[in-house]
Amino acid sequence: MALSRKEFLSLSGKSALAAQAARLGFFAFLSEPSGFSSDVLESSTVKKVHAYIDDHLDEHVGKIQEFLRQPSVSSWDLGIKECAGMLVDYFKQLRCKEANLVPTDGNPGVWAWYDGGAKKTVSRYFMYDTQPFNEKEWSSPPLAANLAPMAPFRSVIIARGAINSKGPLRAFLNALEAIIAVEGKLPVNIMFTCDGEEEQGSPHFHQVLAPYIDRLKICSAHLDPDPSQNREGQVSMWLGNKGICYVELEVSGRRWGRGPQKMPIHSSRKAILESPVWRLVQALHTMYNQSANRILIDGYYDAITPPTEEEEMLIATLIEKFKDRAFASERENVKAWMGDWSDEDAIRHLTFDTTLNIDGIWGGYTGPGVATILPEKAACKIDSRLVPNQGVKDQEALIRRHLDEHGFSDIEMRSLAGGDEWSRTSVREPAVQSVLSVYKKYGIEPAIWPRSAGSSPEAQYTRPPLNLPAVSGGLGHGSRAHAVDEYFVIEGNDKVAGLAECEKSMVDILYAYANWPE
Amino acid sequence: MALSRKEFLSLSGKSALAAQAARLGFFAFLSEPSGFSSDVLESSTVKKVHAYIDDHLDEHVGKIQEFLRQPSVSSWDLGIKECAGMLVDYFKQLRCKEANLVPTDGNPGVWAWYDGGAKKTVSRYFMYDTQPFNEKEWSSPPLAANLAPMAPFRSVIIARGAINSKGPLRAFLNALEAIIAVEGKLPVNIMFTCDGEEEQGSPHFHQVLAPYIDRLKICSAHLDPDPSQNREGQVSMWLGNKGICYVELEVSGRRWGRGPQKMPIHSSRKAILESPVWRLVQALHTMYNQSANRILIDGYYDAITPPTEEEEMLIATLIEKFKDRAFASERENVKAWMGDWSDEDAIRHLTFDTTLNIDGIWGGYTGPGVATILPEKAACKIDSRLVPNQGVKDQEALIRRHLDEHGFSDIEMRSLAGGDEWSRTSVREPAVQSVLSVYKKYGIEPAIWPRSAGSSPEAQYTRPPLNLPAVSGGLGHGSRAHAVDEYFVIEGNDKVAGLAECEKSMVDILYAYANWPE
Repeated sequence: MALSRKEFLSLSGKSALAAQAARLGFFAFLSEPSGFSSDVLESSTVKKVHAYIDDHLDEHVGKIQEFLRQPSVSSWDLGIKECAGMLVDYFKQLRCKEANLVPTDGNPGVWAWYDGGAKKTVSRYFMYDTQPFNEKEWSSPPLAANLAPMAPFRSVIIARGAINSKGPLRAFLNALEAIIAVEGKLPVNIMFTCDGEEEQGSPHFHQVLAPYIDRLKICSAHLDPDPSQNREGQVSMWLGNKGICYVELEVSGRRWGRGPQKMPIHSSRKAILESPVWRLVQALHTMYNQSANRILIDGYYDAITPPTEEEEMLIATLIEKFKDRAFASERENVKAWMGDWSDEDAIRHLTFDTTLNIDGIWGGYTGPGVATILPEKAACKIDSRLVPNQGVKDQEALIRRHLDEHGFSDIEMRSLAGGDEWSRTSVREPAVQSVLSVYKKYGIEPAIWPRSAGSSPEAQYTRPPLNLPAVSGGLGHGSRAHAVDEYFVIEGNDKVAGLAECEKSMVDILYAYANWPE
Repeated sequence: MALSRKEFLSLSGKSALAAQAARLGFFAFLSEPSGFSSDVLESSTVKKVHAYIDDHLDEHVGKIQEFLRQPSVSSWDLGIKECAGMLVDYFKQLRCKEANLVPTDGNPGVWAWYDGGAKKTVSRYFMYDTQPFNEKEWSSPPLAANLAPMAPFRSVIIARGAINSKGPLRAFLNALEAIIAVEGKLPVNIMFTCDGEEEQGSPHFHQVLAPYIDRLKICSAHLDPDPSQNREGQVSMWLGNKGICYVELEVSGRRWGRGPQKMPIHSSRKAILESPVWRLVQALHTMYNQSANRILIDGYYDAITPPTEEEEMLIATLIEKFKDRAFASERENVKAWMGDWSDEDAIRHLTFDTTLNIDGIWGGYTGPGVATILPEKAACKIDSRLVPNQGVKDQEALIRRHLDEHGFSDIEMRSLAGGDEWSRTSVREPAVQSVLSVYKKYGIEPAIWPRSAGSSPEAQYTRPPLNLPAVSGGLGHGSRAHAVDEYFVIEGNDKVAGLAECEKSMVDILYAYANWPE
């Protein structure tokens, strides 16, 4: 059922529940059992673990540095095997019952099972690979993992992978080791599944999960404690993500049977030859209305379901409490939203709309100055973000059918990337409630989005056959993922938690979830 | 007046004159004065000069090698000044009355005036710069100018500039020196204007002409003897060329005030932001009909005049005599003409149609694999070939007006290249007749096109204020201009003339023109 833009917007404010939630703020979504907070999050166990973390902070920093100094750049095939092996060793040191590499058609994954005989078992995802880097541009070598001041923080670790995400991975293991040191065992059992190609779009991650799918079914949640504060100390939660379909379209004279066949030809020949570049323009033009905000591919909206009541409540609250901060980091690069929408409307569209985006387009001569050629081919990369219940393969098939029906059957369409599906978890899930209770303990009201506008492999846990609720959260901050001088804050300030508080919040989340009533 | 495609095609065969010409072949266009050939082209003077060339061939080859060994790569600024100076020296050795560099805002031009007191003065264009090269790919170093066999030729010179066009330049000077050695002076006076930036699109050549425009007005023709045979020994003549308008169009979020403003943004933002790439697609789409063979820019065809009767006669003859050979060199790269036209129709369209071609298009991520961005800008290069009476600036203004009237006033349009205008010379001009008479002497029937589908600066001579008839032609062969192993044939075979015959045909053309009745 296609939901028209008008219908979308008219939903806003319709629901009495949504209006009520908006007034109360996000803690209205938390149904903390009576006495829960003081019983568990203020328990002597948790306090002892926190104290242990404080006492062993230098050692914890050292372990993070050790892991960051082991390169694991998947696109350069640099240090991948060594890093995977190091991760297996970490799991063994944690006294995991199982810890081994998982061969795939690409880089190895890692599987580990920590079984402390707890009642609940959670699933945990790690990625151990990183983006590449240009060392010359960095203020501190990206593999040195040096500690340095970086205003407004007195101490951060600067390294490739510092925040995305080898630093937080090792911080989580530090937190687990602290619990085991104090208590002898963890409050939950954990099944770890780890990806060595996340930065390549996780093309083989399903091969990591496949051998363990049946065993993963005993998990009750997919829990990814992670430093989630921005520079101002604010926190956002996304209860899922959109799917993504990513294709490359190529028009070639050879496949078309028209225009230049094998190589570019002198541009004067446009008088007597068709042009693959013009054909690409014509084909793309059929896909969108003039404002490029209404996709014209037949059936493209059909699978979309309207927002749920919970999503409406979350959005209403988000708009009421966070409207002014929702797009703070994007202001510099944005002057006006599409259709001159208000921030409120933009929040809704960002959450609920499917998209069709040209990530890149190219053909012919693209250098400086003049070359007079009629190119023999032209291509573009297109991604489409998918919302419930659009499926990657279904939407790809609609694009293919559209091209065929509009006379463009010669256009080659190549699927790129793994094609992550959309993912959704209810705010009412105990795992989410546990994270909310931790935020409440620290006095941080999170901005909760029904889903991220981006994509991730999370659906491999949240959709059949596993159907796990998934949530991420925690204190701490780092930034510049994929960029120069990537960092992870070690010593916090009055707004942002440092490493000790980051690890403590991870401990809190595990104890909160372990003790949350089913 | 816009001439519709249907009107164009219906002209074919309409004219009795055209049909008659077609039967007779191109020598029907030659009105040789009675006894002219035996009187002049077989005169003892010409024969003595030919013999001199045969006797001094090794010396002539050496002079060509000397000139080719002096690099003059304009895009690398390599050897430009030295080569220009060498050219001035050559003119001084020829006992030119004037020979000097002409400063421009770019590379210097060269002016020279040979005044032998002859009745007629001709204008001659030289370019002394060359394309760059990648020496590793060559079978013989591109600056060594070695002699080598290259099947089916027993001896060629391999060098950058061998055929385009320092080899032919020096061959012409060799021919002039031979005449002077035998006769003491040339049969015509010559004004030389030389370009050091032809490979850059001659951006400053008007500054070379400007100081000499008034003096050039005493010329009666612009005569460029040049080796014109293909590998099969066949010859084509183009009695002019199309003009060219070359622009770059750029859509940017910044100028548009919409979409990403300063840098690419995460592609998930397509849900709430407009896209400059889609805007470029939309803008381009307004310029052409679906088949990209009818330009939709208002008024774009208005200035076009129908083919003249002479052009119709030439085309009819071309189709009758050369239809099968007209596109021989393009067969490998072409499967079907636009609209499935016949070769006859393609010849007409190639000659008479204006065009709109995308030479290149680019935006966003164009590398391998996946990047999920919404680009902040996108651009393309467009060239349009112009026929009488389209003017470069007029057509550019129509494109600009089209964009503005279709709501794309934010799209930046940058003019690239000098913008050569169309050029046209009548086959009846004595200069053209002279060249035809030389071809007849050697038994070669040329394929005469009313104009080339490409462009050149020739209009700077043929249109006001100079209004000179322009023609090029001569025996000899070379190829691979701009490519690896560029060559110029020194020792010909049964189809193609070698250097001696090339220089002799240049001598013939000068004597034929000098003696042609006004």
